[in-house]
Amino acid sequence: MKTIGHLISGKVTTEGQRSQDVYNPSTGEVLKQVLLASRTTVEEAIASAQAAYPAWRDTPPAKRARVMYRFRELLEQNAAEICRLIGEEHGKIVHDAMGELQRGIENVEYACGAPELLKGEHSKNVGPAIDSWSEFQPLGVVAGITPFNFPAMVPLWMYPMAIACGNTFVLKPSERDPGSTLFIAELLLEAGLPAGVLNVVNGDKEAVDTLLDDPRVQAVSFVGSTPIAEYIYNRASANGKRCQALGGAKNHAIIMPDADMDNAVSALTGAAFGSSGERCMALSVAVAVGDEAADAFIEKMTAQMQGLQVGAFDDRRNDFGPVITRAHQEKVVGYINSAEEQGAEVVVDGRDPKVPGYENGFFVGGTLIDRVTPEMVCYQEEIFGPVLLVVRVNSMQEAMDLIDAHEYGNGTCIFTRDGEAARYFSDNILVGMVGINVPLPVPVSYHSFGGWKRSLFGDLHAYGPDAVRFYTKRKTITQRWPSAGVREGAQFAFPS
Amino acid sequence: MKTIGHLISGKVTTEGQRSQDVYNPSTGEVLKQVLLASRTTVEEAIASAQAAYPAWRDTPPAKRARVMYRFRELLEQNAAEICRLIGEEHGKIVHDAMGELQRGIENVEYACGAPELLKGEHSKNVGPAIDSWSEFQPLGVVAGITPFNFPAMVPLWMYPMAIACGNTFVLKPSERDPGSTLFIAELLLEAGLPAGVLNVVNGDKEAVDTLLDDPRVQAVSFVGSTPIAEYIYNRASANGKRCQALGGAKNHAIIMPDADMDNAVSALTGAAFGSSGERCMALSVAVAVGDEAADAFIEKMTAQMQGLQVGAFDDRRNDFGPVITRAHQEKVVGYINSAEEQGAEVVVDGRDPKVPGYENGFFVGGTLIDRVTPEMVCYQEEIFGPVLLVVRVNSMQEAMDLIDAHEYGNGTCIFTRDGEAARYFSDNILVGMVGINVPLPVPVSYHSFGGWKRSLFGDLHAYGPDAVRFYTKRKTITQRWPSAGVREGAQFAFPS
Amino acid sequence: MKTIGHLISGKVTTEGQRSQDVYNPSTGEVLKQVLLASRTTVEEAIASAQAAYPAWRDTPPAKRARVMYRFRELLEQNAAEICRLIGEEHGKIVHDAMGELQRGIENVEYACGAPELLKGEHSKNVGPAIDSWSEFQPLGVVAGITPFNFPAMVPLWMYPMAIACGNTFVLKPSERDPGSTLFIAELLLEAGLPAGVLNVVNGDKEAVDTLLDDPRVQAVSFVGSTPIAEYIYNRASANGKRCQALGGAKNHAIIMPDADMDNAVSALTGAAFGSSGERCMALSVAVAVGDEAADAFIEKMTAQMQGLQVGAFDDRRNDFGPVITRAHQEKVVGYINSAEEQGAEVVVDGRDPKVPGYENGFFVGGTLIDRVTPEMVCYQEEIFGPVLLVVRVNSMQEAMDLIDAHEYGNGTCIFTRDGEAARYFSDNILVGMVGINVPLPVPVSYHSFGGWKRSLFGDLHAYGPDAVRFYTKRKTITQRWPSAGVREGAQFAFPS
Amino acid sequence: MKTIGHLISGKVTTEGQRSQDVYNPSTGEVLKQVLLASRTTVEEAIASAQAAYPAWRDTPPAKRARVMYRFRELLEQNAAEICRLIGEEHGKIVHDAMGELQRGIENVEYACGAPELLKGEHSKNVGPAIDSWSEFQPLGVVAGITPFNFPAMVPLWMYPMAIACGNTFVLKPSERDPGSTLFIAELLLEAGLPAGVLNVVNGDKEAVDTLLDDPRVQAVSFVGSTPIAEYIYNRASANGKRCQALGGAKNHAIIMPDADMDNAVSALTGAAFGSSGERCMALSVAVAVGDEAADAFIEKMTAQMQGLQVGAFDDRRNDFGPVITRAHQEKVVGYINSAEEQGAEVVVDGRDPKVPGYENGFFVGGTLIDRVTPEMVCYQEEIFGPVLLVVRVNSMQEAMDLIDAHEYGNGTCIFTRDGEAARYFSDNILVGMVGINVPLPVPVSYHSFGGWKRSLFGDLHAYGPDAVRFYTKRKTITQRWPSAGVREGAQFAFPS
Repeated sequence: MKTIGHLISGKVTTEGQRSQDVYNPSTGEVLKQVLLASRTTVEEAIASAQAAYPAWRDTPPAKRARVMYRFRELLEQNAAEICRLIGEEHGKIVHDAMGELQRGIENVEYACGAPELLKGEHSKNVGPAIDSWSEFQPLGVVAGITPFNFPAMVPLWMYPMAIACGNTFVLKPSERDPGSTLFIAELLLEAGLPAGVLNVVNGDKEAVDTLLDDPRVQAVSFVGSTPIAEYIYNRASANGKRCQALGGAKNHAIIMPDADMDNAVSALTGAAFGSSGERCMALSVAVAVGDEAADAFIEKMTAQMQGLQVGAFDDRRNDFGPVITRAHQEKVVGYINSAEEQGAEVVVDGRDPKVPGYENGFFVGGTLIDRVTPEMVCYQEEIFGPVLLVVRVNSMQEAMDLIDAHEYGNGTCIFTRDGEAARYFSDNILVGMVGINVPLPVPVSYHSFGGWKRSLFGDLHAYGPDAVRFYTKRKTITQRWPSAGVREGAQFAFPS
Repeated sequence: MKTIGHLISGKVTTEGQRSQDVYNPSTGEVLKQVLLASRTTVEEAIASAQAAYPAWRDTPPAKRARVMYRFRELLEQNAAEICRLIGEEHGKIVHDAMGELQRGIENVEYACGAPELLKGEHSKNVGPAIDSWSEFQPLGVVAGITPFNFPAMVPLWMYPMAIACGNTFVLKPSERDPGSTLFIAELLLEAGLPAGVLNVVNGDKEAVDTLLDDPRVQAVSFVGSTPIAEYIYNRASANGKRCQALGGAKNHAIIMPDADMDNAVSALTGAAFGSSGERCMALSVAVAVGDEAADAFIEKMTAQMQGLQVGAFDDRRNDFGPVITRAHQEKVVGYINSAEEQGAEVVVDGRDPKVPGYENGFFVGGTLIDRVTPEMVCYQEEIFGPVLLVVRVNSMQEAMDLIDAHEYGNGTCIFTRDGEAARYFSDNILVGMVGINVPLPVPVSYHSFGGWKRSLFGDLHAYGPDAVRFYTKRKTITQRWPSAGVREGAQFAFPS
Repeated sequence: MKTIGHLISGKVTTEGQRSQDVYNPSTGEVLKQVLLASRTTVEEAIASAQAAYPAWRDTPPAKRARVMYRFRELLEQNAAEICRLIGEEHGKIVHDAMGELQRGIENVEYACGAPELLKGEHSKNVGPAIDSWSEFQPLGVVAGITPFNFPAMVPLWMYPMAIACGNTFVLKPSERDPGSTLFIAELLLEAGLPAGVLNVVNGDKEAVDTLLDDPRVQAVSFVGSTPIAEYIYNRASANGKRCQALGGAKNHAIIMPDADMDNAVSALTGAAFGSSGERCMALSVAVAVGDEAADAFIEKMTAQMQGLQVGAFDDRRNDFGPVITRAHQEKVVGYINSAEEQGAEVVVDGRDPKVPGYENGFFVGGTLIDRVTPEMVCYQEEIFGPVLLVVRVNSMQEAMDLIDAHEYGNGTCIFTRDGEAARYFSDNILVGMVGINVPLPVPVSYHSFGGWKRSLFGDLHAYGPDAVRFYTKRKTITQRWPSAGVREGAQFAFPS
Repeated sequence: MKTIGHLISGKVTTEGQRSQDVYNPSTGEVLKQVLLASRTTVEEAIASAQAAYPAWRDTPPAKRARVMYRFRELLEQNAAEICRLIGEEHGKIVHDAMGELQRGIENVEYACGAPELLKGEHSKNVGPAIDSWSEFQPLGVVAGITPFNFPAMVPLWMYPMAIACGNTFVLKPSERDPGSTLFIAELLLEAGLPAGVLNVVNGDKEAVDTLLDDPRVQAVSFVGSTPIAEYIYNRASANGKRCQALGGAKNHAIIMPDADMDNAVSALTGAAFGSSGERCMALSVAVAVGDEAADAFIEKMTAQMQGLQVGAFDDRRNDFGPVITRAHQEKVVGYINSAEEQGAEVVVDGRDPKVPGYENGFFVGGTLIDRVTPEMVCYQEEIFGPVLLVVRVNSMQEAMDLIDAHEYGNGTCIFTRDGEAARYFSDNILVGMVGINVPLPVPVSYHSFGGWKRSLFGDLHAYGPDAVRFYTKRKTITQRWPSAGVREGAQFAFPS
């Protein structure tokens, strides 16, 4: 059985004492083993990054970017293999994996722009013959800790830009589906990255805490659940590190009476059930304004869901695959049960999906629950499964109050044709990423990703322009020159 | 005796139970009383700011800026009174207070540019007929906690930009010299700021902790010593607030053998002794490369210091005034004593300055100490007094290693004529603000202020472009419109 | 009778041989004389600007900006007098003059941001130890030629930013209403501008051609009619000068069937008749989509126009005043006549307005003409009077085709509630300034003003960010230092 | 014999009536024929570009950029063939051609950043509930006319960015070495560019004038000699097109007494003789400050030039190759003759180089001429050959006056170690691209290229950030929505 190791100083090592099973969630079987790094192994990776830093820092940004151009080519050339690895460990269908990879590639493309993005501001004559300018210098060794749900994309949110900015990197990916992450990291080395600039350690809390406590690590980027995000942020901050930690979400869509209902239903189908709802930008709550809109939405969505196909990752005809573990499957079903018990109406029930040939897979079918209220557990917590809740309200303001009252503030959207409603909503809603008739308003790679409230801890958002600021520190230089220099010297030294 | 109160909801209140003496450090006498706010009073100020927020947030940035233009005029018109207030409570000489105020005004000027600075990025066609843009929205209620050494300037680093960005503000200035701070805040209200948008509470730890713990406060800016900065940062962060906390410094100047020595001596005289050295950007260590440079520097500096005049704030002929308290005076003298005991050479001794007519003032004279080594206490800690240490090294690299090894990384400078030396230094030194033949490389108001290492906790620097980012949060909107809208409707509805 | 002279080298001179009458258009009487500069006088002004250039160029941008802050204060303090001068020479009502002045002040505010706006881009390590940065340096002497319709605002579009960028300036305002322009220029000198940095010459074609031909003038900004704009642009360009020349307009508003009709009528009343329609952003053509919309619009607009009050400038109850000259009054009436002759329907007829007590004033009343077609002269040419044409079309696309086919492309707007229609319109229409439910989409001062097609000759728009680029030229510096410098020298020279 | 044709609508056509010889300048033999397009052919290319425009304009920038990523890969993969084509038609040595291509690729890389570079500015609340933003929209069909000396690089300065911005393009390359240019254009189509988006027509004045006069062409970029640049600029401008036209140069290097002379000589050898001096950034005049510096420079340069190897393009050991034509060879020799006749001293004489086996090639050897004065023809005109002139002056100011007095202001540099001299020089010199110890200060691709004075006609520089502005036009949209929209409607329609 294959063992997934660590990438340190340019080499994959598979020595180690502790390991953990990696499952194929479509079959429920153990597929591989992944090593869990000890503190010593993580420190070795940090030391490797530290050693590689001085030379990489001094490499011109344009040369650093050139490695990213080649990396981008290799990602395109190896897309099929990457998607296969994602699929067999995570369970997402090939087309969905390809979408994930494409988003990741776009972050590599943004990192290719490092020479432009690292420009500082230059001011001539801040005083008489005094100039001043800013530089955005790299931090040193930085670390990334990433979740299981996007094993290719989320790491690519982080290290391409961190590295293009001149840092060196230690990545701790999810131990549940580490295969594609390691494979992609090796491609970056193949693209010409010097050994030690990117290191990957697989592991669990021991690895995480080592990264959080080691004084050589200057900054930590994290994506995961809110409790862990908060833990990471507080511990890293207390240790004097820069940190950005992205947590959970409960993303609502408002369905206005004037919405293009076919469009809304079609958009929400993908946004709610795609990738089994295991996305921090999944749209998991539809808030219908008025019963008329609610009834129309429920009717059309129910019809639309008849065609939803759940199944194994390697059959492109499937719409979505299993959830990540048996335990998570049970947790999602538990939320549906609790909704029912607390008085909601399960309109489409995915608790017992049939997936012939994959009876042991961790599947949950697409589920639609109407008449959900804010008091219910299913509403308050992030389900992270293919479950769409419908809440009915009487006015747009009521819908907005609901969203603003929720703990999370990652993404949201509104379906309307009306310019004024859209503007009022996007202006006032207390959410970081807002869609207008766009159900998954994930910012493109040249904007930045970040929620509000307890969905993000830190000042700066992920990827895009904010990532440049996160992975660099500002230095401001003020310069004047003594007046009696070589210039006048020359003037007097050689009179005609 | 005058009692300095709080400014809450547009009114100055002088009711309260606890108060503290405010001294005139030039005479050593108690001058006024300052109230120390209870938790209840601080919460009242926060509530006032919270109530003022919605309307202020919706006021167009250009209108918010217009208040700053008028504020700027009032600051210029009231400069004499402001400087008098600073002088009698802090002790700095009138011309120095004027310099401080001018720097503060420049921050108000920068805030006048809010309409330009708040522009977001707009991307057409991030996908087919899909647009996306970012907005930098205000945070809500934010707080500032400021030190005694710049009672006018440091608050002006904070609230003009915070307010111009649409936030409302609660300021907790130093209780040692609160007079000018409150006076200036009243001018901003006179300039047309709605009541409640800026509130000032005087106080001590109780006030500070209330600001750090109240959930309505979204962000905290702090300037002070490193231990307090660290405390503030960790507590505010743990409470989910955005925070930037600026701490202490030990700023070194490298004197290269090719330096214009007259220029260096002249520049360092002001940088070391101005404002009695009570500046986080004071240049307190001169590192001379080679004994030849050291000897020349000591000789010229000793001569220059003969002319230094220490005395009361209201005599413009004085170069600098007293330190802030009796206790601080004793602490500074203690550092000089320890230097002497640990083997350094006190070349010019300011431990017993004569200031006729002000025998009880908290004065320390300009002091020059040669042959200081890194092991000495006077080198390791921030003295915050008119004391210049000289360290002798053999090479520029040795000088740089010394700087990089120090706990602080606020400011530094090099004196040289050589382009290459200057570039190598500014590129590599681990300090946030670098001067090349500029001894106090305080960035101008349109750049940002911030040290590295333990001189600043937080991701973003103070004032300038970084302040815009600190006082706003990013929202990203992605928008598409349903295709079958009014447009095609019209097209088909009215055929010719 | 008062004679208006020139401002050269900081002094107003009233010597000169040729002069011209300045009228009060409300009464039709000659009010003052204005001198018309000879070639020699203009050259004197250029020489003054040339002499003032080197010192002004080297003045730090923050100091240059400080003059603008004071200028801003003086404009506010002298607003009443400025508006009186505008009113008596131009005829616009006091409240309209105040609006013009306010817009001008906003341009001064933008110029206050020069230190921020002049920042260049700094790139560290474009190669190994090689840095590169850009500077935006001033051009030298630049000239502005401005029209009668905004004697305060349009000059303020130009010289504040030009001067804040470090240039010196020669202004040639309209000879029809030169009083306020000269008065304002004197305020800038009072604000502390060194003599010669701003010069004003009144004159006609001789003055204009001198500015266009003199090799010391580096750039020319012009606002006026399209034939003159084209002449200016070609002659200045052929002489090697940078030039931006803004010409005429014919701004259309599309009234969609879903428009908020009350809002549209109210908005268009001001946009069509304000300042007697003598604005290059006047909305002079309403394009109604469908007869239903057209009929409703005509009905409501006719009712609204009953309340329109035309009269003398100094009565605030008036909505608009006279046109600029007797000849222009006759020209406007001629357009109305021709419309009628060519088959359009004059719904509201302003050809013979009654203005008791001002029987000799150059008045035209508000005029509404329905059923205008693209072949009519009144449609093809810019009327520059209080005349609103209505064209009826059957679809939004037809309305857009009409706009795109017109010679001019200055401003346009659409009235709709529909997000999709607005987005399609603003994306595709061949016009530089687009309003969505905003009838006069004049960009705010921190954006830039410019039409497309034959409404603007040149690459860069007026005021705002583009003005910074227009009034500066890019210099790019690439720097490396020889490696064997003082740094290593020091290292070896002083071994331990 | 091969005939080089046109690329129109995605296909290479070789039909045509007029053609011209293409030489191998290393052998002096005719190598190929190139077709010269008639007016009809050029119009066909314009029509093709016009037809391709609407769809390409609406293609999202990220998709347009993706074509550039693939183009970049193809350029790297086909580098050898491209360099061979450049070499055999132009004569430059393979390593020099590779350098040219690399610079071109860097411009493609910059164009890959289009999504970032096309961001407009978004302002929330320019008034109450009114927003405004700018868009940078493409122009339509734009044309490029390029010179013989960089057949690969200069076209790549233009069309990648123009196309990435959404324009379609017609390129008219030099008819002397059109092979590599056409080959590269075909690679872009292979990369996935839709047919018609890039068209190439070979030709002479007839083709050029057609491009300048056709109303469908919106803008023209040109690089060539100053007289032609001026002609192009004036004719295009008069036709209402946007134009940037780059002309000739005479780039001076100041050798200061404190210069690192070995570095200066080494740097200038490449800068003066590389590519036979046929570069608009060639360093053709060395200005030595003081006879001591001059003598040392002459001595070391003379020694260095002994090793210079001139010869055929395909031998990598050669330093530079032939000039472009027999006529140009004679012209260069004529300049050397005239220098000698006018009193200068030909220190190293390249008028009769020996290139065994290539006796008919158009070779001129490296030539060094001392004691040149400003009155000489060789000083006043651009030689465009491997000839380095030395002028002796007595002071840095004298050197600067010389540079400022010259007609051209493309590039310049100074050799010094002194920070103050460098700063004074770069601040004040009237030249657009300045090097400090960098002899060929060609800005990197993410800055912009442009000279001052008669070296560039137009407002905006080539490539880099300025190219984004040149190839787009600003549109500013101001938006508000009627208040009584769907939002409140919903609010009242569905009360609880």
